[in-house]
Amino acid sequence: MTVSSTRKKVSDADLFENSHAHIPSMLFCIRRWRLMRSVALAQRADVAWTDTSRYRPIVPCEALLMFQTFESESDPSLGAQRVHALRERMRQHGIDGFLVPRADEHQGEYVAPGSERLKWLTGFSGSAGAALVLGESAVIFVDGRYQLQVRQQVDLGVFSIANLIDTPPAAWIKENLGARVRIGLDPWLHTISEVKALTESATSIGAELVPLSRNPVDEIWTDRPPVPLGRVEIQPLQFAGELAKSKLARLAEAVAESGATHAILTDPSSVAWTFNIRGSDVPHTPLALSFAVLSADENHVLFIDKRKLPIEPEAYLTQLCDLRAPSELEDAIIGLARAGAKVSLDPALAAEKLRTLVSENGGHVVEAPDPARLPRATKNEAEIAGSRAAHRRDGAAVSRFLCWLDRTDPETLDEIAAVKKLEEFRRSAGDETQMPLRDVSFPTISGAGPNGAVIHYRVSVATNRRMAPGELYLVDSGAQYQDGTTDITRTIALGVPTEEMRERFTLVLKGMIGISMLCFPAGTRGMDIDAFARIALWKHGCDFAHGTGHGIGSYLAVHEGPQRIAKTGTQKLLTGMMLSNEPGYYKEGHYGIRIENLILVKEPAPIEGGDIAMHAFETLTLAPIDRRLVKIDLLSTDELDWLNAYHARVLKEIGPVVDGETLKWLEEATAPLKLD
Amino acid sequence: MTVSSTRKKVSDADLFENSHAHIPSMLFCIRRWRLMRSVALAQRADVAWTDTSRYRPIVPCEALLMFQTFESESDPSLGAQRVHALRERMRQHGIDGFLVPRADEHQGEYVAPGSERLKWLTGFSGSAGAALVLGESAVIFVDGRYQLQVRQQVDLGVFSIANLIDTPPAAWIKENLGARVRIGLDPWLHTISEVKALTESATSIGAELVPLSRNPVDEIWTDRPPVPLGRVEIQPLQFAGELAKSKLARLAEAVAESGATHAILTDPSSVAWTFNIRGSDVPHTPLALSFAVLSADENHVLFIDKRKLPIEPEAYLTQLCDLRAPSELEDAIIGLARAGAKVSLDPALAAEKLRTLVSENGGHVVEAPDPARLPRATKNEAEIAGSRAAHRRDGAAVSRFLCWLDRTDPETLDEIAAVKKLEEFRRSAGDETQMPLRDVSFPTISGAGPNGAVIHYRVSVATNRRMAPGELYLVDSGAQYQDGTTDITRTIALGVPTEEMRERFTLVLKGMIGISMLCFPAGTRGMDIDAFARIALWKHGCDFAHGTGHGIGSYLAVHEGPQRIAKTGTQKLLTGMMLSNEPGYYKEGHYGIRIENLILVKEPAPIEGGDIAMHAFETLTLAPIDRRLVKIDLLSTDELDWLNAYHARVLKEIGPVVDGETLKWLEEATAPLKLD
Repeated sequence: MTVSSTRKKVSDADLFENSHAHIPSMLFCIRRWRLMRSVALAQRADVAWTDTSRYRPIVPCEALLMFQTFESESDPSLGAQRVHALRERMRQHGIDGFLVPRADEHQGEYVAPGSERLKWLTGFSGSAGAALVLGESAVIFVDGRYQLQVRQQVDLGVFSIANLIDTPPAAWIKENLGARVRIGLDPWLHTISEVKALTESATSIGAELVPLSRNPVDEIWTDRPPVPLGRVEIQPLQFAGELAKSKLARLAEAVAESGATHAILTDPSSVAWTFNIRGSDVPHTPLALSFAVLSADENHVLFIDKRKLPIEPEAYLTQLCDLRAPSELEDAIIGLARAGAKVSLDPALAAEKLRTLVSENGGHVVEAPDPARLPRATKNEAEIAGSRAAHRRDGAAVSRFLCWLDRTDPETLDEIAAVKKLEEFRRSAGDETQMPLRDVSFPTISGAGPNGAVIHYRVSVATNRRMAPGELYLVDSGAQYQDGTTDITRTIALGVPTEEMRERFTLVLKGMIGISMLCFPAGTRGMDIDAFARIALWKHGCDFAHGTGHGIGSYLAVHEGPQRIAKTGTQKLLTGMMLSNEPGYYKEGHYGIRIENLILVKEPAPIEGGDIAMHAFETLTLAPIDRRLVKIDLLSTDELDWLNAYHARVLKEIGPVVDGETLKWLEEATAPLKLD
Repeated sequence: MTVSSTRKKVSDADLFENSHAHIPSMLFCIRRWRLMRSVALAQRADVAWTDTSRYRPIVPCEALLMFQTFESESDPSLGAQRVHALRERMRQHGIDGFLVPRADEHQGEYVAPGSERLKWLTGFSGSAGAALVLGESAVIFVDGRYQLQVRQQVDLGVFSIANLIDTPPAAWIKENLGARVRIGLDPWLHTISEVKALTESATSIGAELVPLSRNPVDEIWTDRPPVPLGRVEIQPLQFAGELAKSKLARLAEAVAESGATHAILTDPSSVAWTFNIRGSDVPHTPLALSFAVLSADENHVLFIDKRKLPIEPEAYLTQLCDLRAPSELEDAIIGLARAGAKVSLDPALAAEKLRTLVSENGGHVVEAPDPARLPRATKNEAEIAGSRAAHRRDGAAVSRFLCWLDRTDPETLDEIAAVKKLEEFRRSAGDETQMPLRDVSFPTISGAGPNGAVIHYRVSVATNRRMAPGELYLVDSGAQYQDGTTDITRTIALGVPTEEMRERFTLVLKGMIGISMLCFPAGTRGMDIDAFARIALWKHGCDFAHGTGHGIGSYLAVHEGPQRIAKTGTQKLLTGMMLSNEPGYYKEGHYGIRIENLILVKEPAPIEGGDIAMHAFETLTLAPIDRRLVKIDLLSTDELDWLNAYHARVLKEIGPVVDGETLKWLEEATAPLKLD
């Protein structure tokens, strides 16, 4: 339980040791960057590392200075032999099929390299999907946005393609398989809800779902990267706003109220929020992969690899809970179950394995939402103040970027160059304010011309497009600073836009402003207001095929639940929730438009003459919206007033922190628009 | 299977036989009217009636000419002795509690007098609620709108009051009862979903739910009215628009597709729609209480009391299905189950009893929505044409009424007088067009001044209010004609309204117009657009505590699912669906405002320059909206244009069918409004 004193310090310079040893292809170098980063961070965490030779950085390449890479991460050629090897293992396990999801044990958006089983097996690198390998065939399930990409990344001689939304594995199995087929799965990688759906569908056709105690993919993946050991740090109270002790007391109460004796936090975002810690195990989200078992009687246990913990975080955590190794989790749950514990598990987040560990050992499973979700989603004053500061910093960086973009001949630019420049501006904005850029909050979406119409576009060297006058350029990006996470989209006219582009841009803007100006009573859900972002487009026969907004964490995940502004947004919008507001319009093969600000749900306030106090939104994001794309005559007076007031605020808040050239540009970019 | 030829004809005059025999109080007379009507209708159906003496009409009273009554149907004094008697029965059944819902076996909004068990036991006459009688205590569950009424109608020494929404019986049981308590219920009166929730809650505390084969309330209700035998008629193809044969073929296919061999239609609206019949068993909705068992192989059976069937309907139905007595239903289901049938039941509509009959006899229950719901909700061309005609007729009646109201000194009027006059205008409009008023589609809500703020107000002699200048008068009413069902609300200024009334009226109007002007893509649900009816009110700190719109039947129920415009409206809006559009504002103790039109979902149509065809609404209702209450400066140009265009259409369609005085009034009432 105490900290070993035998660790040796490594300096930042160690990150680059051996860096000139060998020069393989640029791509190869970049591909290893992510792995190297976690190793390096682990080393920084003073950990005696045993098997790092493969992960040492090999060349100093430009990518080392960046948090994102541009390789085409596709290798379809290995699919056939790997599927062949998997089939042999399947026979040994006595199963006819095996399901390989993209998820890890924590169901997060980003996973560590050693959990990229789907990518390793199939070549597909998208952020959602699954494969089902059968004796004679194999299917890969991806959603609409990946239909093109999957065809480039996987061997179509090995995999057929199914739609993850229309026919997810549970539906596919029901439609395509027959009685007595045995489908294996790794119960650590599927949620309780998923397994329930899979079981129902298998049972309905007389097939069988077989949870395996060893994952056959892991058995054949001989050079599988080890679990990440990213260094953990304490999130200071100044930014967290509430002592972990106080949060734990609140959660213990919630656990008791739900009728449970214990709750297992399986979402590392919940662990990070609850204990006021941040980690570096996965890209772009400061998570420490770990599980916590909270107890109604406040005897909490955190299952985390101690090699991630420098002395101070370990000493700090020891005050709050017992620290145990992740390998002890299963036995600990079995022990609780045998003692008759009532264990709360979130069926949408928790691994099926946890459910069976509890229920097969005499415990009682209480299905309830992760108790940290709502407390985490409703930001406190310190988190809000941090976010405002992060947005001033980020707004300065984005403004410098937009100024640079305007002042540069587009024909000398491409999408990757823009991403690099934007990250550079964020890095220097962080350095200037002594709040360094910790990461980008997701790989920048940098889409020129038709690439802007690909909603989840990720630029790679293969798709990189030179900019051209007369095109639109869409850039959706974000930063991780210790005081807050940002996410902003701007669409920029390169040269002179067409009237159609300006009209559609203004319709999207009307939707964005529509959400920004809303006031609404307590109890309103995200789904109740989503259409306000669409109505202007609807009137012109247009729409966009994504939700209007997602929740966002406080120096945590850029996509955070449960709050959403979308048709699926069943969560009531509560004071302190932060969301994105990002309507769009996409003309396939031509251009994409999206305008995104982050917004904060304000406390209900009385309205003069009214009966009910109403929530409203505060806009957090601060950067100009391209005035050249606004058709003023399509805006109502209220909308025009909102836009001018927003720009005045951007100038007031960002003006003082940018230099001469950017300031001059900013003054022009935020000048009031007037209807003639 | 054939029709007895021994029946004798009765003329309409028979309805009034013995009508001068006795003159009790007016109220008593009116209370018997409903019962008498079904008996009379049954007699008209040429049925040899055995026990009608109690139900003969006693006096010719004004009420005989109306479809609605105004008595205060409250009798709290009998609650104590009836609950006492029920407790004795409970002991004999070996149960500690018994649950009495307001529902009958068909879960409709209106039930026959013999199914008003909740009212008989407690005195409470609301349209939703339940009572739980325990050994030493009893609870009645009602929702927010009935909190006042229930206190007047039930003996508070016998019943405590619980909130039906916050703590429905399932939640109440969990919170208040302990282990080993045995709660009885009649499994014919609770849906599958309800019993599931009740069972889960009882099980969680170690209590037990006991389905009884005999209802103990029925055992003590010695003068319980018999089941209604309302005459059945065929709904002509001219109004139904599709042969029952064709509907049955479609439904048989749907049953097969759902993986079932049979489906039980438990909702008499579904039976009526499917077989193109209408009945007269319950007030205000032309239903024939009955069950149908549809079969994927098209051997359908209708379980209906043949005494309801005149010769033609019986001969007609015999072509379509087997006709059996309702008493044979249980054995028929047991037979199907024993033969291994897969029986589709709608868990939200079907009685738990049906589920157990299937599953306890070797059958398989397929839980699926009532297969007739969506086909019924999406009206065909004939139904739409019928509705348009019904709305022209009804619009003429409402216009005459509004003209009469305007031309009459309010101080000579009260709420009941207005209801009577409106029904009279509807009756004469029906007679003029040879499409007689069959019923009102619900008891008219006629609220002057503060009564208008009671959302589900029902005027009674006790609450009847004299009108006064300076007040608002809210009237929400509807008609049943053979070609369509109507439902319209208008709010009228009596004398000079206050500026606040005009402002709030205009905000409500903006919401109503907002919905009317919408266009939206396929896939949009009612819940996605509900807030457009509220946003104008929200901006002024106001809201209304009900949904914006409900579905409506085609000469069927005035409240018809599954379509709704409400926070709970999960159903996608499909071409041909009819809904109400009725935002409101209620200032408790002062006034109520509601403006309601019926609207029809039109087929998606392309929009010039747009990508996607869009649905829009066609307004069906035709009657002026009180111009004196409109504050023009609060309307946008689009909204003002909509209102003027609507009024122009009302004049064009209603003008030709009203007489001189009304026409003159109509021209004024529909004159265009202009912003100075």
